[in-house]
Amino acid sequence: MNTFRQKCDLDLGIPYDPPLTPSQRLQRVEDYVHQHGLNNAGFNTAKAADLLEMKVADLFGVEAAIWFPTGTMAQGVAAKIHVESHHDGSKKILLHPTSHLLLHEEDGYKHVYNLQPKIAGTWTQSLDDSSIDKDLACVFIEMPQRHSGGVLPSWQALESIKQTCAKQNVPLHMDGARLWACRPFYENRSYAQILKGFDSVYVSFYKDIGASGGAMLLGNKPFIEQAGIWRTRLGGFSPGSWPMIVDTLSVLEQKLKGMPAYVQKAQSLITSISDLQVDILPADAHVNLFHLKLSYSKETIERALQVVADTEGVWLSDRIWEWQHLTYCSMEFVIGENALRLSESRFRKAVECLLRQLADHSG
Amino acid sequence: MNTFRQKCDLDLGIPYDPPLTPSQRLQRVEDYVHQHGLNNAGFNTAKAADLLEMKVADLFGVEAAIWFPTGTMAQGVAAKIHVESHHDGSKKILLHPTSHLLLHEEDGYKHVYNLQPKIAGTWTQSLDDSSIDKDLACVFIEMPQRHSGGVLPSWQALESIKQTCAKQNVPLHMDGARLWACRPFYENRSYAQILKGFDSVYVSFYKDIGASGGAMLLGNKPFIEQAGIWRTRLGGFSPGSWPMIVDTLSVLEQKLKGMPAYVQKAQSLITSISDLQVDILPADAHVNLFHLKLSYSKETIERALQVVADTEGVWLSDRIWEWQHLTYCSMEFVIGENALRLSESRFRKAVECLLRQLADHSG
Repeated sequence: MNTFRQKCDLDLGIPYDPPLTPSQRLQRVEDYVHQHGLNNAGFNTAKAADLLEMKVADLFGVEAAIWFPTGTMAQGVAAKIHVESHHDGSKKILLHPTSHLLLHEEDGYKHVYNLQPKIAGTWTQSLDDSSIDKDLACVFIEMPQRHSGGVLPSWQALESIKQTCAKQNVPLHMDGARLWACRPFYENRSYAQILKGFDSVYVSFYKDIGASGGAMLLGNKPFIEQAGIWRTRLGGFSPGSWPMIVDTLSVLEQKLKGMPAYVQKAQSLITSISDLQVDILPADAHVNLFHLKLSYSKETIERALQVVADTEGVWLSDRIWEWQHLTYCSMEFVIGENALRLSESRFRKAVECLLRQLADHSG
Repeated sequence: MNTFRQKCDLDLGIPYDPPLTPSQRLQRVEDYVHQHGLNNAGFNTAKAADLLEMKVADLFGVEAAIWFPTGTMAQGVAAKIHVESHHDGSKKILLHPTSHLLLHEEDGYKHVYNLQPKIAGTWTQSLDDSSIDKDLACVFIEMPQRHSGGVLPSWQALESIKQTCAKQNVPLHMDGARLWACRPFYENRSYAQILKGFDSVYVSFYKDIGASGGAMLLGNKPFIEQAGIWRTRLGGFSPGSWPMIVDTLSVLEQKLKGMPAYVQKAQSLITSISDLQVDILPADAHVNLFHLKLSYSKETIERALQVVADTEGVWLSDRIWEWQHLTYCSMEFVIGENALRLSESRFRKAVECLLRQLADHSG
């Protein structure tokens, strides 16, 4: 970590909640184990996973769930199962250009799963139903769409996607890594209502939930059974994984309660800078995540961040996304416990400082 | 766990060392973190893996190493890398019929990696060099060969395999899940000497080493770099995995010191029953593992085990392997700290009791 960042009294980078030492993490796991009568030598990863799978399946109103060590594995498996059950042998999956599969997985979709992506949609907008046709073996939609600033489809657009998939008989999969904060945008509809119509859903435990790691795949029983076979094939089940599963059990409910406040804070931070000369994506927060579009190089922005840190004592972001085909970088903000401590006026001052630095650089 | 087993004062089943509660496991990790100055919020899975990779690469005298959550993933990746670099596009890998890839991975070699196994060798004997030809993209040899009672190739046979692979230009991979106890059989040659000539080696941390989980792949730098890309593709790197890595760091050296005594004990237990009417595989211990060949059904053997438990207070084994193509079951013994407490005379009495029960059943 650079010294400018270290000297800040407020750090909006990862982790989004107060950082924990290994000792504190272990203590959290230890506390849960004791409080729930799990401290016996027979306790293991399978038993921990059972507990978490039941809890999450119940929370989302789905038939079954299976724990995975990572979202990459969970989603590869989901896509593969859908592709293998396509009546006509299609290997095509519909992916938005910002999909994690295209950007962050070393093209595992191709090398491991032999999938053919059909890429559709606009970088800054949520996927819509216009590219869904019956030749697809699966449609992937990320909700919220991280690299588009956390945008969600409107309820109507989502309904339309669900209906089109049903009509065309194409399985619909949700990359719900950050699904946790979606409810306010959908007028507080339940997770079960949001998930209805999806054939499979992946959620992550170490992003918004802040557990040490892990992911889950949700679906009907036959689908989850298949996923279990694939998890064995891939070697995704290690007997040493139980601490991260228990860690998830220990924080899940508490963190869910925090989501509405995070989304509200994202909105108030956006509002506090909405009259400044900077593009905010989205203009109003959909979830607890938003981006600033900055037409400068990553290097320039990182230098400016150091000046902001030095002047304002705030480390604004540690995620500056630079993509070859775009003329701007995206500075990512994720709201967790840390950002709740940031006043709107201080945030505005810090962003003003950032923009001034950037303008000076180009001037 | 059945009540017969629970009442035994000596249990030779898994785990082979005294069982630990979750609390005790966590404490072991906590102790290591503190003793080694790792208790800061920046400590993570990547840093833990670095420490273990350096330690193991050094121990084995190899250029590089990479941590994996499971052996299934580590070995799939090893095979895939070798296959992808075959000059003629061969997808053939030589596997012994007892290979983990064929028996315990839901055919991931086919479904995930698109490999073509060439199966060669006799079930109860270690793989030899007779089936190695240049059409192979890779040769897999398990050392020791678990389902053959832990047999190893003689040093001469191993040298011959290495030379044949080198001559035919076929990469040689070791399934070294239980490699840790091999040194006594090879006149205490170093791990580095045993590994010399292998292009890749996998070792497991939760079998003989008794850590909570994890595995490692060893090889040269370009190979390990490739393995890192595959680990990303497969989603094998979870940020929540550090406790099992630290757990491994905390026990590795201590457990290695125990190996010679385990092998010696395996030999003395075998010797104590060598005049009884039962086939022991191998006749003399190669490592800390051996099998009894019992020509009865698994169900019959399990009933007999309960009588032994009730009469002798010893739970002999929780691994009774029954394979469709064999006329017998294999009862597996793995020597760890628990078995060191078992006297040869008591073991002999327990096996006599077992054989009597089985004979009575068939009579």
